[in-house]
Amino acid sequence: MAGRSQARSHLPGHTTASGIRYKGRTDLMLAVLDPGTTVAGVFTRSCMASAPVDWCRAGLKKGRARAIVVNSGNSNAFTGRKGKEAVRQTAQGAADTVGCKPGEVFIASTGVIGEPPPAEKIVAALPGLHRAASPAAWDAAATAIMTTDTFAKGATRTAKIGGARVVINGIAKGSGMIAPDMATMLAFIFTDAAIPPRVLQVLLNDANARSFNSITVDGDTSTSDTVILAATGKGPKHKKVSRAGDPHLREFRAKLESLMQDLAHQIVRDGEGAQKFVTITVAGAASESAARRIGLAIGNSPLVKTAIAGEDANWGRVVMAVGKSGEKANRDKLKIKIGGVLVAKNGAVLPGYDEAPVAAHMKTRDIAIEVDVGVGKGRATVWTCDLTHGYIAINADYRS
Amino acid sequence: MAGRSQARSHLPGHTTASGIRYKGRTDLMLAVLDPGTTVAGVFTRSCMASAPVDWCRAGLKKGRARAIVVNSGNSNAFTGRKGKEAVRQTAQGAADTVGCKPGEVFIASTGVIGEPPPAEKIVAALPGLHRAASPAAWDAAATAIMTTDTFAKGATRTAKIGGARVVINGIAKGSGMIAPDMATMLAFIFTDAAIPPRVLQVLLNDANARSFNSITVDGDTSTSDTVILAATGKGPKHKKVSRAGDPHLREFRAKLESLMQDLAHQIVRDGEGAQKFVTITVAGAASESAARRIGLAIGNSPLVKTAIAGEDANWGRVVMAVGKSGEKANRDKLKIKIGGVLVAKNGAVLPGYDEAPVAAHMKTRDIAIEVDVGVGKGRATVWTCDLTHGYIAINADYRS
Repeated sequence: MAGRSQARSHLPGHTTASGIRYKGRTDLMLAVLDPGTTVAGVFTRSCMASAPVDWCRAGLKKGRARAIVVNSGNSNAFTGRKGKEAVRQTAQGAADTVGCKPGEVFIASTGVIGEPPPAEKIVAALPGLHRAASPAAWDAAATAIMTTDTFAKGATRTAKIGGARVVINGIAKGSGMIAPDMATMLAFIFTDAAIPPRVLQVLLNDANARSFNSITVDGDTSTSDTVILAATGKGPKHKKVSRAGDPHLREFRAKLESLMQDLAHQIVRDGEGAQKFVTITVAGAASESAARRIGLAIGNSPLVKTAIAGEDANWGRVVMAVGKSGEKANRDKLKIKIGGVLVAKNGAVLPGYDEAPVAAHMKTRDIAIEVDVGVGKGRATVWTCDLTHGYIAINADYRS
Repeated sequence: MAGRSQARSHLPGHTTASGIRYKGRTDLMLAVLDPGTTVAGVFTRSCMASAPVDWCRAGLKKGRARAIVVNSGNSNAFTGRKGKEAVRQTAQGAADTVGCKPGEVFIASTGVIGEPPPAEKIVAALPGLHRAASPAAWDAAATAIMTTDTFAKGATRTAKIGGARVVINGIAKGSGMIAPDMATMLAFIFTDAAIPPRVLQVLLNDANARSFNSITVDGDTSTSDTVILAATGKGPKHKKVSRAGDPHLREFRAKLESLMQDLAHQIVRDGEGAQKFVTITVAGAASESAARRIGLAIGNSPLVKTAIAGEDANWGRVVMAVGKSGEKANRDKLKIKIGGVLVAKNGAVLPGYDEAPVAAHMKTRDIAIEVDVGVGKGRATVWTCDLTHGYIAINADYRS
């Protein structure tokens, strides 16, 4: 924390949480970052992006962060001028509290769309949060950013950069409106490595494509999706890195991707109403991104997802979903495996196909679908969950 | 019917139905068409199209039809060489029965994907169907093509072409895997007008864009979607028409569109698990097709559809869906009406917005959502239904 804790910590950054809106749970998080912290971010591609997303995009230009404020009661999306003003007030409040410029404050919000947020209450709570901030408060922070999540989501990794071991910590929230680019998904990742903002941004983009942009719960994309990666530079001194391709960053990149996939999987496992975790691997596509789009067409198909909920080995619906993806696929070379068992190849069901082992796999909690579309070398993996009565129950009633 | 019924009928074409697979319901339809009948068709855009779709596309090149065979027990999709052979056998059987060329037989199938269909049983049933064919069997025909439909779908219109009154009849089936381009949707439309195939195709394409391609139940696109429009030319003699823009066709075009919208609405009302019928009107888009894509993004959003199921006036989810559509929209000019009541404009909720009348509208069966995205003059209307526990129940269990 600024001026108070320059000491080495295995948990870079200091976080704290407070409750404003909901009784029985906290809904405001403050993360305080050491001076000199660099920052990168990826955001929703929605053209209806929330006021906090607009604010963060502007803040990234300087690439420095000293505080992150997250409110999980109100998304501050589609709130017009009032919403913009609420963000400005919050940033000013946090800057005053932490001792930095408003442009070094990053803000994320999630919750109901269309109601201006209680900025004054948020600002009033910040000094208390700042006093309570501690490197050990990650659980509380992960809990504070939850909405319909049923469990708090966190992950940690270490990686060596030129012999020095740095730490990466992350927290995230789901759990509906989850689709690439990126869903009502917030994630905050902190490392004590020293990495310039432009390099950090490339590392984040790459890992994001194979993690948060490769999951889907319901195909709906939030106005508020935010992933922020902050590097405090307060870990053990390591070799200076000035480009993303630096071989010294190889382990860090791998561990960052692993941590982000871990968080992404937690979001899917906690998908609204989810009973099953589904891994969809697409090979033989025209490119990696084509493979990802085919995987998402399968992962977003209500008919595929309900079949999985019903434990029905209905691979015909996988064929349907590949067909509707809009990507190149060769019907007469299509190959499908479920639970590792070959079901169809060359555009038809396997001669003498025995459904028994596949039916048994469908009864497990972790479902694996592999598809080869037979046109190229593009590969991608996408993760999703099933579509259940629970999803309907949560979303036909939510908003209180 | 060939050689037997050249007489004028208000129901152009003769249809009949038989049962092969399911006890308690028929699942095979034969429509017999007078010599000289012209034909047009539109089909799924899935790259996994079924064998019957391949067959029909080829048949359209000659533009003549004498018989349509529809089987609703098995889609004959993803069935490889066996599926192709089954189609050929069926066409040959129908040609022998009716007395025409196999290329004048059109075939559509719907049902389970991936199992070769019982072609021999179908062929064996055709002579009996042919004997029973009657201009009065439309109800039976509409029933024979049903799968999970809960009611048979038909519509009729008349239109004047240059003073002569012609008839248009149509039947259709839904009711899941319904999304534009075009869903497991089969529709067969018959008129006694005399219209050359190329003109007929243009009329069908235009009406299709504003009917079957403007509905969605679940966003899933079938491998088997087929709409066939056949013109027997056996109605009252009318002025010859040689181009789609002929002013004499104006009323016919309007009535064809009206009939196809009627059938499309019936499909949506019978959408799997549907409790509400939703009309989404998008204005202010960059083009008509952009407006349609925005409407479909709203109509396909699980969060919008579950909110409607829950009778929740959650217009924030409409904002979210516009944002994810990928089409141009001006957040700060966005306007939303629900049930005719202005809810939001200029990118924010209406000052003093009173939810009461909107909440009352949400409790009705027919829901109207209007959106103006503030960038252009493109308009389109899309129809959908809500997403309910019923959809999950039907699709987590279907496939017997």
